[in-house]
Amino acid sequence: MKKILIINGPNLNLLGKREPSIYGSTNFGAFLKTLKKEFRDCSIDYYQSNIEGEIIDVLQNADRKYSGIVLNAGGYTHTSVAIGDAVKAISVPVVEVHISNIYSRESFRHVSFIAPSAKGIITGFGLDSYRLAVESLLMP
Amino acid sequence: MKKILIINGPNLNLLGKREPSIYGSTNFGAFLKTLKKEFRDCSIDYYQSNIEGEIIDVLQNADRKYSGIVLNAGGYTHTSVAIGDAVKAISVPVVEVHISNIYSRESFRHVSFIAPSAKGIITGFGLDSYRLAVESLLMP
Amino acid sequence: MKKILIINGPNLNLLGKREPSIYGSTNFGAFLKTLKKEFRDCSIDYYQSNIEGEIIDVLQNADRKYSGIVLNAGGYTHTSVAIGDAVKAISVPVVEVHISNIYSRESFRHVSFIAPSAKGIITGFGLDSYRLAVESLLMP
Amino acid sequence: MKKILIINGPNLNLLGKREPSIYGSTNFGAFLKTLKKEFRDCSIDYYQSNIEGEIIDVLQNADRKYSGIVLNAGGYTHTSVAIGDAVKAISVPVVEVHISNIYSRESFRHVSFIAPSAKGIITGFGLDSYRLAVESLLMP
Amino acid sequence: MKKILIINGPNLNLLGKREPSIYGSTNFGAFLKTLKKEFRDCSIDYYQSNIEGEIIDVLQNADRKYSGIVLNAGGYTHTSVAIGDAVKAISVPVVEVHISNIYSRESFRHVSFIAPSAKGIITGFGLDSYRLAVESLLMP
Amino acid sequence: MKKILIINGPNLNLLGKREPSIYGSTNFGAFLKTLKKEFRDCSIDYYQSNIEGEIIDVLQNADRKYSGIVLNAGGYTHTSVAIGDAVKAISVPVVEVHISNIYSRESFRHVSFIAPSAKGIITGFGLDSYRLAVESLLMP
Amino acid sequence: MKKILIINGPNLNLLGKREPSIYGSTNFGAFLKTLKKEFRDCSIDYYQSNIEGEIIDVLQNADRKYSGIVLNAGGYTHTSVAIGDAVKAISVPVVEVHISNIYSRESFRHVSFIAPSAKGIITGFGLDSYRLAVESLLMP
Amino acid sequence: MKKILIINGPNLNLLGKREPSIYGSTNFGAFLKTLKKEFRDCSIDYYQSNIEGEIIDVLQNADRKYSGIVLNAGGYTHTSVAIGDAVKAISVPVVEVHISNIYSRESFRHVSFIAPSAKGIITGFGLDSYRLAVESLLMP
Amino acid sequence: MKKILIINGPNLNLLGKREPSIYGSTNFGAFLKTLKKEFRDCSIDYYQSNIEGEIIDVLQNADRKYSGIVLNAGGYTHTSVAIGDAVKAISVPVVEVHISNIYSRESFRHVSFIAPSAKGIITGFGLDSYRLAVESLLMP
Amino acid sequence: MKKILIINGPNLNLLGKREPSIYGSTNFGAFLKTLKKEFRDCSIDYYQSNIEGEIIDVLQNADRKYSGIVLNAGGYTHTSVAIGDAVKAISVPVVEVHISNIYSRESFRHVSFIAPSAKGIITGFGLDSYRLAVESLLMP
Amino acid sequence: MKKILIINGPNLNLLGKREPSIYGSTNFGAFLKTLKKEFRDCSIDYYQSNIEGEIIDVLQNADRKYSGIVLNAGGYTHTSVAIGDAVKAISVPVVEVHISNIYSRESFRHVSFIAPSAKGIITGFGLDSYRLAVESLLMP
Amino acid sequence: MKKILIINGPNLNLLGKREPSIYGSTNFGAFLKTLKKEFRDCSIDYYQSNIEGEIIDVLQNADRKYSGIVLNAGGYTHTSVAIGDAVKAISVPVVEVHISNIYSRESFRHVSFIAPSAKGIITGFGLDSYRLAVESLLMP
Repeated sequence: MKKILIINGPNLNLLGKREPSIYGSTNFGAFLKTLKKEFRDCSIDYYQSNIEGEIIDVLQNADRKYSGIVLNAGGYTHTSVAIGDAVKAISVPVVEVHISNIYSRESFRHVSFIAPSAKGIITGFGLDSYRLAVESLLMP
Repeated sequence: MKKILIINGPNLNLLGKREPSIYGSTNFGAFLKTLKKEFRDCSIDYYQSNIEGEIIDVLQNADRKYSGIVLNAGGYTHTSVAIGDAVKAISVPVVEVHISNIYSRESFRHVSFIAPSAKGIITGFGLDSYRLAVESLLMP
Repeated sequence: MKKILIINGPNLNLLGKREPSIYGSTNFGAFLKTLKKEFRDCSIDYYQSNIEGEIIDVLQNADRKYSGIVLNAGGYTHTSVAIGDAVKAISVPVVEVHISNIYSRESFRHVSFIAPSAKGIITGFGLDSYRLAVESLLMP
Repeated sequence: MKKILIINGPNLNLLGKREPSIYGSTNFGAFLKTLKKEFRDCSIDYYQSNIEGEIIDVLQNADRKYSGIVLNAGGYTHTSVAIGDAVKAISVPVVEVHISNIYSRESFRHVSFIAPSAKGIITGFGLDSYRLAVESLLMP
Repeated sequence: MKKILIINGPNLNLLGKREPSIYGSTNFGAFLKTLKKEFRDCSIDYYQSNIEGEIIDVLQNADRKYSGIVLNAGGYTHTSVAIGDAVKAISVPVVEVHISNIYSRESFRHVSFIAPSAKGIITGFGLDSYRLAVESLLMP
Repeated sequence: MKKILIINGPNLNLLGKREPSIYGSTNFGAFLKTLKKEFRDCSIDYYQSNIEGEIIDVLQNADRKYSGIVLNAGGYTHTSVAIGDAVKAISVPVVEVHISNIYSRESFRHVSFIAPSAKGIITGFGLDSYRLAVESLLMP
Repeated sequence: MKKILIINGPNLNLLGKREPSIYGSTNFGAFLKTLKKEFRDCSIDYYQSNIEGEIIDVLQNADRKYSGIVLNAGGYTHTSVAIGDAVKAISVPVVEVHISNIYSRESFRHVSFIAPSAKGIITGFGLDSYRLAVESLLMP
Repeated sequence: MKKILIINGPNLNLLGKREPSIYGSTNFGAFLKTLKKEFRDCSIDYYQSNIEGEIIDVLQNADRKYSGIVLNAGGYTHTSVAIGDAVKAISVPVVEVHISNIYSRESFRHVSFIAPSAKGIITGFGLDSYRLAVESLLMP
Repeated sequence: MKKILIINGPNLNLLGKREPSIYGSTNFGAFLKTLKKEFRDCSIDYYQSNIEGEIIDVLQNADRKYSGIVLNAGGYTHTSVAIGDAVKAISVPVVEVHISNIYSRESFRHVSFIAPSAKGIITGFGLDSYRLAVESLLMP
Repeated sequence: MKKILIINGPNLNLLGKREPSIYGSTNFGAFLKTLKKEFRDCSIDYYQSNIEGEIIDVLQNADRKYSGIVLNAGGYTHTSVAIGDAVKAISVPVVEVHISNIYSRESFRHVSFIAPSAKGIITGFGLDSYRLAVESLLMP
Repeated sequence: MKKILIINGPNLNLLGKREPSIYGSTNFGAFLKTLKKEFRDCSIDYYQSNIEGEIIDVLQNADRKYSGIVLNAGGYTHTSVAIGDAVKAISVPVVEVHISNIYSRESFRHVSFIAPSAKGIITGFGLDSYRLAVESLLMP
Repeated sequence: MKKILIINGPNLNLLGKREPSIYGSTNFGAFLKTLKKEFRDCSIDYYQSNIEGEIIDVLQNADRKYSGIVLNAGGYTHTSVAIGDAVKAISVPVVEVHISNIYSRESFRHVSFIAPSAKGIITGFGLDSYRLAVESLLMP
């Protein structure tokens, strides 16, 4: 059975509370439950941190333990060479996701240091971005 | 039953022949057959053109006839204000897809004039990008 | 009697339907009728295409046949060196028009490859931009 | 009867004397007389100053007294955030005009701090730019 | 008793009338009265001009006559090397203030030629920016 | 009674020791005592961390518990999209402060990712920047 | 016998008529005749289009049918990622030519999206650029 | 006898008082006296203003009345398209001078809108810059 | 006896495993042992963290306890104003090292916020960069 | 009989030894012999120097002595305003050549200070670039 | 008696022959004779080289032997950090001169690596630039 | 026995005399003697030139004769594509050194055309930079 790890970066613990016009009003915990129900053929673990270096720790430790990682690095997406290096350094495929359409927001959100090393990028589908990312990791 | 239109832009008619290290060796026709089999609950139409303005024509005509459009505008993605305007002008949701990871290629491929008006963007999963895009349009 | 040609570029066939808050809700066909009535002393022909190269064809063919051209190249305004070259290559005066105030929109709309070769530029008056352009071409 | 104010900025008092190959050889006083004759249905006032702040004073005072303003801010067009703010702050419509085609000249002349707040912009028709601007303000 | 001079630049004479969603609806005269009441231990003089050079004149003349200056140079903040030079040339401390949060507006408002020579900068508190500035000049 | 939280970012624990020509020679602990004495009508809590993500944690937890936050994010001011997002995500007003005049230092210090979401910004008054910030949060 | 295809892009059908000071006064048809006479050992086909996508069509179809292509993409040279992709996608060698010295003209003409994938580039020799290009394709 | 006009821009009335390490400690009045003594064969008039538009007025009025103008536009040098236009519009030769070496100061002082239209530029010789400028205007 | 501290930043705990073509295949623990043997006249401590703020903590605490610090801040080198500030704030000399030649990699790796405050920089010698750095700190 | 001078700049004396994957493995001496044999109707002289100023000396001295110059300025192409000035200063036509396709290499190689003054530019044909350049100089 | 050295850089040996519309038609040798006659109270030596490093040699050797240097570094002005370093390294004052108005030419000629270390800069007076430079070096 | 060549570029012959606050007061000759004594197991040759092309000559000739080169190209570091090409063209390892910390100086000194092809870079250790470079070349 495939094992998947979802990692959420800074401020994504506020989902459902923070700027609902951009991020929607669903709480991530509730969404995660639904997600697990939908994908019964794989196990899904979840980790959230506001600390850049802890995300790097988790990425490193996840290597070889998981068959795929879904990473929404939040604000670190646009500034963190170090997380980008971690994604490049490990061998498990990482799918970068974004809830909002970052290309219709401020220009500093159009840059990602993670994307060049990601397996693929899924942007703008709301929480469905995670759903599609898990799907992609289960494709043969 | 939902109706979906896949539009491929310039040079994507060469899929399977052109730079297989980047774009893979599958012919799009063959792939389309598989795709249709997988998604029996919706109808999938296909259109390809190398001409920017014809893609605009097709986008305009597809409005209200389809429930969703999957658009890989190829090289026009990075230069066409006009296709971006067309996507913005119509009301049917458009999902932008890319076969290769455009963020690990030349910097002029990191810009998209379509993305700000797209429902979502799916990049880098090979032909699976189309699969995920169709999936996303079928989500409730 | 002076002969004038109005050329509309990509997506301008959607006028009245597309983003009415920016482009207004009048259909261009209706507007054209009114325009012809107002300017009985000249004949006004009309051409619209979504295809960049067809606009070039029409510009080239219009040379010497018309006394003036009103050109709204839509999204091609900001990207087409080739249309700019065509305007420069012909000898009939071309007036560039825009319906919306392109300077209060995205920064990529602030650049025009046509303007340096145009006789003049009229921007932001809604459909009246065309009216003023025709007027300018009839001035002695 | 509509009241229109034409404001000319720095160095435009030299019209007819300054660089005739760019600005023509007509004196503005003479042109103004003709203009008034042509537009008998409205009254046209005129003001010229080389001082940025005086142009702001005049714009502020003109608010609600005039039905429209024609503004050629000359060199201040490209540098004055303050005049742009004044245009934005008042409620009477302001039409920005330029005699020469600023897009075929130095690149610092391609930027306007006034344009984003103007009702419309008319560029490159020689003194006819003023004529078209007055016309535009009289349109219903 | 400390003597303080408040200088307001272009368009700030319109406060209460101009774009109330950005600048509030209080008239500066009324505000000044309240301010004087609150700070009875110091005298507060006020000067407003739309003319860049007059602001320089006033800054130069204020040197050694006042114990502190509160300067809101409005649109000149972002373009005037000359006012910045004047602030640097005099020895009385100058506090730069802004009513609105200039960092959430157009990018050309993020630059200040005055800030490098100012004693301090206070931005975004509405008319309270002036209150805090006076306070700062009274601190021991 | 209003509750205020002061948050200091990286290296601000060195105040009084680090580069006294820029940051002064007062220890922040000593300053905090004076500050609390001056503002007896409100309670002031204090937090310092060198870790970006911990500052985000504290900002999130402070929401609704405090009536205002004074934030000096030090070097993270200029690089942290994530802290800027946290400030935007919470509803308690945040005042950004800087001890030194960041505009007379290196150009990379002229950019702030926090400012666009801050209630106001106070820069360059030495430790008095905190005093003014507390003052601003107590204003009616 | 080697087969060579010459492709001319937008506005090059006007050669001899358009801006003779830049492009010379020879008609391309006449020149082509001379060229064919000079190179009797190879066959030379000719295609011109103002439409970007048609040039892509022709490039794709020419693959494997010709031993070499001479391409003057005119204004599309500087804007067309898609033509550049087509040149890269086919295996027949493409020589990029320009009649005028594009480096002594506007700076937007100094960029070519075709050059990185071309076999070689020949610029500035007037119509002789084509002659040299054919020559280069016949070299062993 | 040749007539020369020296025009000083903003803050240059403070010479001798303002930042003596950059501008020296000589008062301009005293210097002017010496200058007149040295150049008895010509008459030298002097004008100073802090107001951009007044400098333009003086430049325009000086045309044909003087045989040469020495212009130190101070801070306006780097921002005023309008003064640059005035220098270009008049026919009397204008020599641009600077007291300090503007190339060893902030980068925004390296740009001059006046220089392209000046007869010549003399920079960095302290008050001797004026001496050399007068000299240059007297050369046959 | 001199005391030296080596600090490694994010992902450097993966040395020997991560991208061996860039970083070599030696494990840092093994290398450290050799290093200690070679430099018996000094003591060498080692610290690694993926967390930016912890590196700042360690730098601050190392001040006055060590005679020199060898710092490879990994990806934070290129983004961390805060670590740069910490290096500047402490008085013990810090030598910046890089294993790979960062100047032959992506352009965002060519910038270092640490270098301006470092005692010296050693780049590109593989693990020997550390050896040379220790050497440099032992020089008289 | 026409006289042609070939000038090679820095490092081109290493041809055949230096980076053969980019520059080929033919020695220039050997190639020159073949070239002379092929073009018996003209005389070909050759000069190589690694010194920028010597290339300028040779260009100046060649003026009027030769009917054409073939110049490969190597690395100086991209940095030497002075060689560009020399090419512009002399009246004999200069053809710029490059062995490799400089547009598929580092971006600093895409700029040429020589091209704007060259008769034409031939790039990317290996040593055949010289052959075509000589050919071009012999054309009537 | 003061000793002055005039150094001319690349292509200035062509004066009188090269682009007379920009540089005039006087030969520098002839001009030098006149100059020496005019300044009988000082001795003037002259040196010209097309080689950047020889100019550095001469600058270094001239230190302490001359009371002043007049340097026209020609094209090296805009590219040579090394000549700028030499000027900075020596203690004899160096006056930078230019014959043409470099600010009305290509933008790459607006930058000087010498200016920040020069005593002063004289630009645009034709050969009189040298005359004024010698004059400036003789001023008390 | 290993043979090492030290090459110093422009102005480094002035070491000990030039700007001692940046470059120290030791003469390079004296330093070289000490260096040779310290490294008795290898021979050290020395070459200095102010001429860019001579440095290229020396680099080319040193290939295969030396086991390593220490190169301080001085001002040419930041401008010479040609020296960078020479370093890339030869097979002997080249270590780039700088005496001063170029990253705390002007921004044009932060760029090196040599670094991408160097074996390693050592910056900021004063003359010890050479010592460390020789050391690095002797490492096994």
